[in-house]
Amino acid sequence: MKTDTSSLEIIKSTTSKLDQTKLDKLVFGEIFTDHMLECDYENGKWKTPKIKPYGPIELMPSAKVFHYGQAVFEGMKAFKDEDDKIWLFRPEENFKRINVSGARLAIPEFPKDYFFNGLEELLKIDKEWIQKGFGNSLYIRPFVIATEECVSAAPSTKYKFMIICSPAQAYYSGEVRVKFSETFSRAADGGVGYAKAAGNYAAQFHPTNLAKEEGFQQIVWTDANTHEYLEEAGTMNIFFRVGDKLLTAPTSDRILDGVTRKSIITLAEEFNIPVEVRKVSVKEIVEAARKGELKEMFGAGTAAVINPIVGFGHKGEKFELPKLEDTYASFFKDKLMKIQYNQAEDRYGWRYEVKQ
Amino acid sequence: MKTDTSSLEIIKSTTSKLDQTKLDKLVFGEIFTDHMLECDYENGKWKTPKIKPYGPIELMPSAKVFHYGQAVFEGMKAFKDEDDKIWLFRPEENFKRINVSGARLAIPEFPKDYFFNGLEELLKIDKEWIQKGFGNSLYIRPFVIATEECVSAAPSTKYKFMIICSPAQAYYSGEVRVKFSETFSRAADGGVGYAKAAGNYAAQFHPTNLAKEEGFQQIVWTDANTHEYLEEAGTMNIFFRVGDKLLTAPTSDRILDGVTRKSIITLAEEFNIPVEVRKVSVKEIVEAARKGELKEMFGAGTAAVINPIVGFGHKGEKFELPKLEDTYASFFKDKLMKIQYNQAEDRYGWRYEVKQ
Repeated sequence: MKTDTSSLEIIKSTTSKLDQTKLDKLVFGEIFTDHMLECDYENGKWKTPKIKPYGPIELMPSAKVFHYGQAVFEGMKAFKDEDDKIWLFRPEENFKRINVSGARLAIPEFPKDYFFNGLEELLKIDKEWIQKGFGNSLYIRPFVIATEECVSAAPSTKYKFMIICSPAQAYYSGEVRVKFSETFSRAADGGVGYAKAAGNYAAQFHPTNLAKEEGFQQIVWTDANTHEYLEEAGTMNIFFRVGDKLLTAPTSDRILDGVTRKSIITLAEEFNIPVEVRKVSVKEIVEAARKGELKEMFGAGTAAVINPIVGFGHKGEKFELPKLEDTYASFFKDKLMKIQYNQAEDRYGWRYEVKQ
Repeated sequence: MKTDTSSLEIIKSTTSKLDQTKLDKLVFGEIFTDHMLECDYENGKWKTPKIKPYGPIELMPSAKVFHYGQAVFEGMKAFKDEDDKIWLFRPEENFKRINVSGARLAIPEFPKDYFFNGLEELLKIDKEWIQKGFGNSLYIRPFVIATEECVSAAPSTKYKFMIICSPAQAYYSGEVRVKFSETFSRAADGGVGYAKAAGNYAAQFHPTNLAKEEGFQQIVWTDANTHEYLEEAGTMNIFFRVGDKLLTAPTSDRILDGVTRKSIITLAEEFNIPVEVRKVSVKEIVEAARKGELKEMFGAGTAAVINPIVGFGHKGEKFELPKLEDTYASFFKDKLMKIQYNQAEDRYGWRYEVKQ
């Protein structure tokens, strides 16, 4: 796609924070690049997007986002290859999904050319922030917030779309053990679980804190009705390897349609790894673990790519997974990352070059 | 409670917007008084609250409230009687509930003295904004937002508690017809439905828009599992009058423990109106409507006090309720408002004077 900067206003920062930033000691999501994209919606339309120096935004305390959580977001990454080319991974999916999420929250559709032109121009302006090296990336956070100054519980008439970017290193969160949820729930049938709706995330913090007290790092959410089926981990979709078979739950109105998730399913098919997309019961996973047939469990999402899980807990019982030499987790992570970093053939057209 | 202003910083506005405000032509939630309360949480504690001129707040675009919806709120009202005394209605309930909501969203507890001292001082400073007259009030919106500048999906380490106030007239929303939800849901078992969590509200906007296209103003949410039981209307609890019996759903982790709701239950008992707090099925309400036994349906909440409902829809069928002379809705509304405006005996200690 050609970058049409005629519909984009650019105010460049006169200074850069890059020199003072320790790019080898990054905590995820804390440091942001020199610029951001901002685009306001008013009177029924999105105005001209602006790239401007990264900095605070001013909102009235009555802005609807503070009261009614009318906000959605996306997570993406930009990668730099050895020739300084900049790549995105399936950005079309994120663009589509921010509007799917938005529609569920009554947020007006954001235009495709504004999204791509704005994002690409922003990446070019802040390209020095994208570090080379396998595992390094620039985490990209597009989001939309409701800004109308009114505390009546109805959809906002004003919105702000933004993109902010944060340099990231390879994500390593230590050994991850998960708890299968027994009482708390993440999403209802007919609810907003499939959307990257802001409120879905805060709702997980308290149950996750409780799980941490029991020695788990994350929760694998189960269906709210019966807690018998495993759904997703809140920031990651979940895969199980039973024997040599890979299992993952189908997407639904409770489960996010993850880009990493569906890329793994495609790769599994390519490499003849048997994969079943179907309801996965707690019972079968616990039984497989008891029999030693549960070989792996891992999360899949943009931030971590693939996050191996070393153990899980259910109804007071704790299970440790075997430590294998060759894991599906590392196989898929390597395959995916090689495509992302332009080190492998891109059979599916997943790579998207940001032309400089 | 004595107002201890030693733990409160006050910066008064040098001008007032009151003169330019048409207090007889108010739209709910659009106009705010001259001052607001602000209190920041950092390094594990709430700092000294400040009353200052109402105005914009500055936040980094990475503030967690924008991404993860970590925000809760309350709705209260202040009333002025004929002797210029200022009254709140059961404010202790709102104070408790903002911390119940906060706990579910991993937000640190807000101190009681900060809440009451701050609120009372704010009301005294802006007391000219509270209009006399049955139906007039000052709508009070306490809320908490997560302000830490970090896009990792974990509880914020920084928060902002605020109170903003908006003058309100008697709430009249026209004739209200509701749709009983058949597919969409508001809350899951084990979720955050009982909390005044920001994200609960945005999630209702889209289904409500669809209901509006069918001629309904609001949705009565049903249980997510079966859609067979009537729960609440999202901003109001719901009551049904079948014959002379009043029915309402019990509170649960999906249903807000409304202050108006429980006040009505208490008044019903006092006035020997038979009231049943139990699961109310769609089936029994539809059957009662067919037999002419469904005499009333009304919502109960702080903003509207009681909002009569004139009809409902379910599975494509529309039902109109009879127009009665003497309704429970107007009976309870009158009883409640007379207590709120210091025009009736306060048997239960619900009224709370803001000493000037």
